[in-house]
Amino acid sequence: MPTYTPPVRDTRFVLEHVVGLAQHLNQPGFAAATPEVVDAVLVEGGRFVAEVLFPLNQSGDREGCTRHPDGSVTTPAGFKAAYRQFVESGWATLGNHPDYGGQGMPHVVATAFQEYMISANMAFAMYPGLTHGAIAALTATGSAEQKALYLPRLVSGEWGGTMNLTEPQCGTDLGLIRTRAEPQADGSWAITGTKIFISSGEHDLTDNIIHLVLAKTPGAPDSSKGISLFVVPKVLVNADGSRGARNAVSCGSIEHKMGIHANSTCVMNYDGATGWLVGEEMKGLGAMFVMMNAARLGVGLQGLGVAETAYQNAVAYARERRQGRALTGAKEPAEKADPLFVHADIRRMLMEAKALTEGLRALCLWGALQVDLEQLSVDDGERQLAADLIGLLTPVIKAFGTDMGYRVATDMQQVFGGHGYIAEWGMEQYVRDARIAMIYEGTNGVQAMDLVGRKLAQHGGRPIQAFLALVAAEIGAAKADAATAELAGRLERALDDLQGATLWLMANAVTDPDQAGAAAVPYLRLTGLVALGLMWLRMAGAAARLAAAGEDDAAFLEAKLVTARFYGERLLPETGSLRRQIEGGAAALMALAPEQFLAA
Amino acid sequence: MPTYTPPVRDTRFVLEHVVGLAQHLNQPGFAAATPEVVDAVLVEGGRFVAEVLFPLNQSGDREGCTRHPDGSVTTPAGFKAAYRQFVESGWATLGNHPDYGGQGMPHVVATAFQEYMISANMAFAMYPGLTHGAIAALTATGSAEQKALYLPRLVSGEWGGTMNLTEPQCGTDLGLIRTRAEPQADGSWAITGTKIFISSGEHDLTDNIIHLVLAKTPGAPDSSKGISLFVVPKVLVNADGSRGARNAVSCGSIEHKMGIHANSTCVMNYDGATGWLVGEEMKGLGAMFVMMNAARLGVGLQGLGVAETAYQNAVAYARERRQGRALTGAKEPAEKADPLFVHADIRRMLMEAKALTEGLRALCLWGALQVDLEQLSVDDGERQLAADLIGLLTPVIKAFGTDMGYRVATDMQQVFGGHGYIAEWGMEQYVRDARIAMIYEGTNGVQAMDLVGRKLAQHGGRPIQAFLALVAAEIGAAKADAATAELAGRLERALDDLQGATLWLMANAVTDPDQAGAAAVPYLRLTGLVALGLMWLRMAGAAARLAAAGEDDAAFLEAKLVTARFYGERLLPETGSLRRQIEGGAAALMALAPEQFLAA
Repeated sequence: MPTYTPPVRDTRFVLEHVVGLAQHLNQPGFAAATPEVVDAVLVEGGRFVAEVLFPLNQSGDREGCTRHPDGSVTTPAGFKAAYRQFVESGWATLGNHPDYGGQGMPHVVATAFQEYMISANMAFAMYPGLTHGAIAALTATGSAEQKALYLPRLVSGEWGGTMNLTEPQCGTDLGLIRTRAEPQADGSWAITGTKIFISSGEHDLTDNIIHLVLAKTPGAPDSSKGISLFVVPKVLVNADGSRGARNAVSCGSIEHKMGIHANSTCVMNYDGATGWLVGEEMKGLGAMFVMMNAARLGVGLQGLGVAETAYQNAVAYARERRQGRALTGAKEPAEKADPLFVHADIRRMLMEAKALTEGLRALCLWGALQVDLEQLSVDDGERQLAADLIGLLTPVIKAFGTDMGYRVATDMQQVFGGHGYIAEWGMEQYVRDARIAMIYEGTNGVQAMDLVGRKLAQHGGRPIQAFLALVAAEIGAAKADAATAELAGRLERALDDLQGATLWLMANAVTDPDQAGAAAVPYLRLTGLVALGLMWLRMAGAAARLAAAGEDDAAFLEAKLVTARFYGERLLPETGSLRRQIEGGAAALMALAPEQFLAA
Repeated sequence: MPTYTPPVRDTRFVLEHVVGLAQHLNQPGFAAATPEVVDAVLVEGGRFVAEVLFPLNQSGDREGCTRHPDGSVTTPAGFKAAYRQFVESGWATLGNHPDYGGQGMPHVVATAFQEYMISANMAFAMYPGLTHGAIAALTATGSAEQKALYLPRLVSGEWGGTMNLTEPQCGTDLGLIRTRAEPQADGSWAITGTKIFISSGEHDLTDNIIHLVLAKTPGAPDSSKGISLFVVPKVLVNADGSRGARNAVSCGSIEHKMGIHANSTCVMNYDGATGWLVGEEMKGLGAMFVMMNAARLGVGLQGLGVAETAYQNAVAYARERRQGRALTGAKEPAEKADPLFVHADIRRMLMEAKALTEGLRALCLWGALQVDLEQLSVDDGERQLAADLIGLLTPVIKAFGTDMGYRVATDMQQVFGGHGYIAEWGMEQYVRDARIAMIYEGTNGVQAMDLVGRKLAQHGGRPIQAFLALVAAEIGAAKADAATAELAGRLERALDDLQGATLWLMANAVTDPDQAGAAAVPYLRLTGLVALGLMWLRMAGAAARLAAAGEDDAAFLEAKLVTARFYGERLLPETGSLRRQIEGGAAALMALAPEQFLAA
């Protein structure tokens, strides 16, 4: 019953007019992304996820994963066949480097496809998603031998990958890790410990699973500075690439959780498992952050992906379901009632969802372009600017994207009334699935602290100044254009709030770090609203230009202009209250003793 | 593992200093509520729900209800025994009229107990909750014979009750009802039709279930004006009160839903079931609204009740769980990490939850007092003011209460990090349970339309003027007191936003009703924030007076003052952006054709 159509038209619009992909095609790393190829990826990739993955989304949620007494885990019916098709069609290799069998598409194109895959089936998308994290870490810090041994089959999707950070006593604070690595005579390490919340930790989709594991070596300091990264394959791999013995790593149990039921969340037991150091000893945290930063952008995309599917279904329901009459008089008097769509409050929820999802699509793809430019640009200044912007905005894309994803999923469920609460209709699953994205890869509160506590101060504040200058420059240009002047004026007020909050933080948080902690979440949200405002300014500008030039998709362009206006009128005003909240300061937060919190 | 302690101390504080219960004891209807009896209700009622109902909350969610092939439904293990204990201990009768075996406690006291019951086990609390709705409708509009036949055993809890409104094609728009009532020779009616989403529709807790059913009589107009209300017992009741034949009403299936698994949500099939008209023919909607208004206040209380339990568990977790160090330096250097409580952003979430739950407790109990005064006061002016205030604020308590309940439940889950997403820890259940309260008894969007479209205009605007005047008067008094002057100043700004938004609505919504629809939800939220501000002003004033008088619970009183300050600094500022959103108007909401919403 639920529906999903990949928003190809909108992705094209964003790639062309917000990301400006065509302007980068002259750079070597973008060469594979010709317009024809990109279009084929969107259309064929969209078709694949809609036809193969989406039909398994609800059934996968209902069935979940099953752990068997021998520690093996089976994924829900249909997942294994769909995964085989995913690999055989080459979708796993899209954004990977040709050296290891990848198609070498820029990250921005792989991200566009990744959004569709998440929309179709978030739990499924997590299996290749985790593999990508492992590829990123091995590519960045693995030895030549490790790359040769693991990367080709990770890239092809023949094998899966995982990230093993969390332990029962240790989540955000990785200094508390207890998993131990003991050096062996042959240069390998014996890994012993328990990891929890390991997404895709054990399953039946691939012949082998390559675990990347954080552990402590003998004598390592008792802090996050003592952590090393190891590669621990489920099945050992001989030097010739053939499968060796089963390694001493096993799934002890799988979690019963709120959502993403079709992804196996495992307790992983390492009982002297054989692993190899990745990169340098005690430099594991840096290597892990290579994975984490990529993963955080991917999680932000999950917010968008789930929101998009929820939104499409709410639009369909609001068109079909008849209840009540328009306040301005019956719109379809021949029927017993008008469609939900006539009601302003239903439209409020749908317009908010439209403004947020299309805005997040632009932001996620624009962010992915910065990842590409940081790595691929031949221009030093462009590389530095891209690195500054994506470093600054990675926590924003992760946290703002997932906060808004959950909000949209919840509101779209609301459009369904009572039916939204019933599993059969599919809407409550989107809420349950979207919820995890606010938590994992660093909770959204941790993202906000990353932004306020680390990123703002980096390079003497250069990244935030670059972002503020970018927004100010585009506002300036847009104010001169009648079609965008009003939104530009509203964004200017929002930017003023962000600048004011930034100055307030600089004046107050240096002497009292709790001020940073107290301001972090509203400050991140303020930044996210401004960043989305920039995206809408670009989209409105492009839509106005194209409409004036008589482009034939007039209804689509009009919708962009109206949605941009809506964003400015109805969502941007929140920045003012966020600034006031920040300026409220930390005193009232920190005043009470823990026992004073209970009023029993 | 989850924990719940009834917040008796806070309830006492609110009853004494916000509700001012003692000042009303001289009115006849309040006579039963002596301080000793009220205290016994809070302490013993709290003990009962904590010891008997709370232990069944998580197991009930896991097991859910089971429908058997014969249409019977069993509740989760332990529910039947707990319900028997609930009835035998007399808790069912608390707020009911002595004429039918009730204890005659004022509604405000019954509400205090009801909050505890919801906190302990929302799904359980819904069984007697629905019975209360049936009691309210029969009391208000039943014949003397119907009252005598049904009320004593509904009041005692020996029988259960339900409300049957929704049909597959008909939720909010009751004019679409298809269920038919045919008059029979003996004065009864034959009821035929299908009702859906019937909470507590079939179960094993009681010998009989008294259904109140909306249906259309022959020739009734095809609108909500054609609806009649019928009483349809599951088992017919002979004139002497003995059980007669099984009636032709049965449970066709139970829904698989997001939460409240332990409450049976039924499809009810009426196949020529025998029913009796309640009140006048085609006056069913009015009778139903007697139930609905009571039920809406009860649903608002669900937002508070679930939030309170989630909050208590998050406070406990934040005290126990160690992760990271305080930004201002290690607070417990002998341990490997500090408790979560040292982190400002954890405190931000906990303080928001504290400010919202304690504020909502005050608002719900103060609202319940207005229900009492409306019915019981011997003073005409007091009765009218109470009726105005509770009429105006019923949709606010329902929608703002449940929106905030869901927000708090979600944030408290966030405090748990990854553990919050795992069923075992119990936090994700609160989110799933809290979610329904935003939907049923009229979605929160429908509540907002009730506020803006009906309640604002009632009696020439007298209720909203009375509310604004009440807030303004208390601000005036509080500004003179140094302890409350700052909060009063902040509430004055918020009140100015509410007054401005009200004027804007009066100027714009009369000529364009879509402006009312577009403004409704932010306007309701703005009203809720101001109402909670009034509650915090009262609490702060009382706490300051008591502290100055040297009352011995200094830590509790200090917490009230700090939380009031927090509310003013960190939550009230939202009113400014809500006003700006409202003033953004409806144009951008209404501009697009439905097909323009999709960007595929």
